[in-house]
Amino acid sequence: MHDASNSAVSSGPIAITMGDAAGIGPELIAMLYRDQPQALHDVLVVADPAVMLRALHVVGAARVGVLVINHPSQALAVAATGQMPVLAAATLAADESLPAFGQISAVAGRMAAQAVDWAAHAALQHTLSAIVTAPLHKEALHAAGWDYPGHTELLQARAAAHVGVSLAQMPVRMMLANRSLRTVLVSIHIPLRQAIEEVTIENVLQTLRITHAAEQKVLGRAPHIAVAGLNPHAGEGGLMGREEIDIIAPAIALACQEGIQASGPYSPDTVYMRARAKTQSKGEFDVVVSMYHDQGLIPVKYLGVEQGVNVTLGLPLIRTSPDHGTAFDLAGTGRADPSSLQEALWMARQLSKPTLLG
Amino acid sequence: MHDASNSAVSSGPIAITMGDAAGIGPELIAMLYRDQPQALHDVLVVADPAVMLRALHVVGAARVGVLVINHPSQALAVAATGQMPVLAAATLAADESLPAFGQISAVAGRMAAQAVDWAAHAALQHTLSAIVTAPLHKEALHAAGWDYPGHTELLQARAAAHVGVSLAQMPVRMMLANRSLRTVLVSIHIPLRQAIEEVTIENVLQTLRITHAAEQKVLGRAPHIAVAGLNPHAGEGGLMGREEIDIIAPAIALACQEGIQASGPYSPDTVYMRARAKTQSKGEFDVVVSMYHDQGLIPVKYLGVEQGVNVTLGLPLIRTSPDHGTAFDLAGTGRADPSSLQEALWMARQLSKPTLLG
Repeated sequence: MHDASNSAVSSGPIAITMGDAAGIGPELIAMLYRDQPQALHDVLVVADPAVMLRALHVVGAARVGVLVINHPSQALAVAATGQMPVLAAATLAADESLPAFGQISAVAGRMAAQAVDWAAHAALQHTLSAIVTAPLHKEALHAAGWDYPGHTELLQARAAAHVGVSLAQMPVRMMLANRSLRTVLVSIHIPLRQAIEEVTIENVLQTLRITHAAEQKVLGRAPHIAVAGLNPHAGEGGLMGREEIDIIAPAIALACQEGIQASGPYSPDTVYMRARAKTQSKGEFDVVVSMYHDQGLIPVKYLGVEQGVNVTLGLPLIRTSPDHGTAFDLAGTGRADPSSLQEALWMARQLSKPTLLG
Repeated sequence: MHDASNSAVSSGPIAITMGDAAGIGPELIAMLYRDQPQALHDVLVVADPAVMLRALHVVGAARVGVLVINHPSQALAVAATGQMPVLAAATLAADESLPAFGQISAVAGRMAAQAVDWAAHAALQHTLSAIVTAPLHKEALHAAGWDYPGHTELLQARAAAHVGVSLAQMPVRMMLANRSLRTVLVSIHIPLRQAIEEVTIENVLQTLRITHAAEQKVLGRAPHIAVAGLNPHAGEGGLMGREEIDIIAPAIALACQEGIQASGPYSPDTVYMRARAKTQSKGEFDVVVSMYHDQGLIPVKYLGVEQGVNVTLGLPLIRTSPDHGTAFDLAGTGRADPSSLQEALWMARQLSKPTLLG
């Protein structure tokens, strides 16, 4: 396995990729520049300039203006003026018009992919310190001939090629996080039946290794990782399922032998409550490893979906994203909520500049 | 199926059964009398008087005193004096001593069962308006020769016998509730693999019928029931599992034909967030039907386990309980938290006196 924990930390700016131009991504970015340009001193936008100009117009912030830059190193000077520094890695061809809001288009899919592709390359070269990806649309991506189910797989492919390993040697995991709770998922977008089959010693152990490496960087110490069980009451000694005894506990034991501070398996119905940070106190654990998608996502989203942030762990670059889609029904109205994008930016800073914010 | 929705509402008092005398049940009840006797004007305790005297002593409230009553109708007069009205349906034999705290004993198991048995009978006769059950211990119950896994099965057996139907004709469901969220579970204490098999059209439909009947009584109108999917994103049109298409959606359609206001299946990771009542606003739905134990219990418990209340639906009597066990390690210390018992009492009032509090 590639050891992501040894990758150098870059002091470069953070790039926000615009996402699908027919969705809410560009206008969410525009809202950040409208509402708090001073908080974007270390940020650049990877986008088509015309798309971002339209987005600024949509949110009533045409006055902000777009300044096209050629290299990330120019971002800081532009940001200081309150303008939006746009690295035009994704652009419309002369015969292409701006994608219509709310419609799947190959043009929007291509531009979204180009922006991510450029940012991945720059992050792997340490020209960027982190990438925040605004949402793209799977079908638009597909229409443009980019056959990746989403950001994660595209980034994984670029990173594996950069490091010179196979995809299998660059396993990734999704972390969902807000300011109260962090969870890393053993599996994500598969049927629940299949997710149970994915609960293997190897997959749980790999999740623990990836979680440990990522959080170690943020916290500057070994994280306390709680592992959720799969069954009610974590099986209650085998009465309600044996996966805890046969799979999860052995995986935890192996991880502990490697110096990972993992404990459990804990009863799923209380481990998230125990891990949750309260206003006055930290949670009992730094992060919870979840056995399947909804086990971890239900508690992370419970207090408000706008606060959720998605972090891809295991890559030799830092990537966060808001925990929502392109919302084609809202695109162009200026009514979408930028909170999750804002949180994703906050999280990218925390992960990339641990010495400043950890 | 027995139609629980037609059972008469009783104006009698609410009974709290003491639970296992070696656990925290008796002292939690004693705390209520110590801290807010005025809130117990319509309550009696079904217990052994000596157990309750010891509990009052443990929590520093010996001054409260116990008054033994022979009939629920005497409860109100006693309650008005601030004393604890105890209906001694469960008593120690002359040669039995008080069960030691924290130890499994047949004596404690027997008394716990006798208290519940008496309360079930009285509630079925409409002498009580509701039962709140303090926790009992499965193994103590078993040691006493009462072969029921828990309260629910004992109450179900008594109710079926009272009505004159088989157990299969008296299906019950567990509702978990706090002041922000209510959820009813299709299945409870079985392995997750098996829980997936229990997601059948019949079981989902029965859950919807039971939920509808119970909440209709509380709200005085048909409840808006959200049905969670089983798979991530509720299957995303069959891409991540087919149970939503083949089972859950057809069950919802059948329920709607019966006049039940059910909708879904919704993506599990956001339906609880949508249903959650906030300080300033009601949730989007009155109640969520969950496909398995942890799907519903993770969000209900997330904000603090002490607020969770368990309600048994489908019976011709009202029964609530705190959402915790006997906590043998805390018993006798007076340090257990009575919040959940208090909430269970609040919920029992809301369910039994809907015209007053609904």
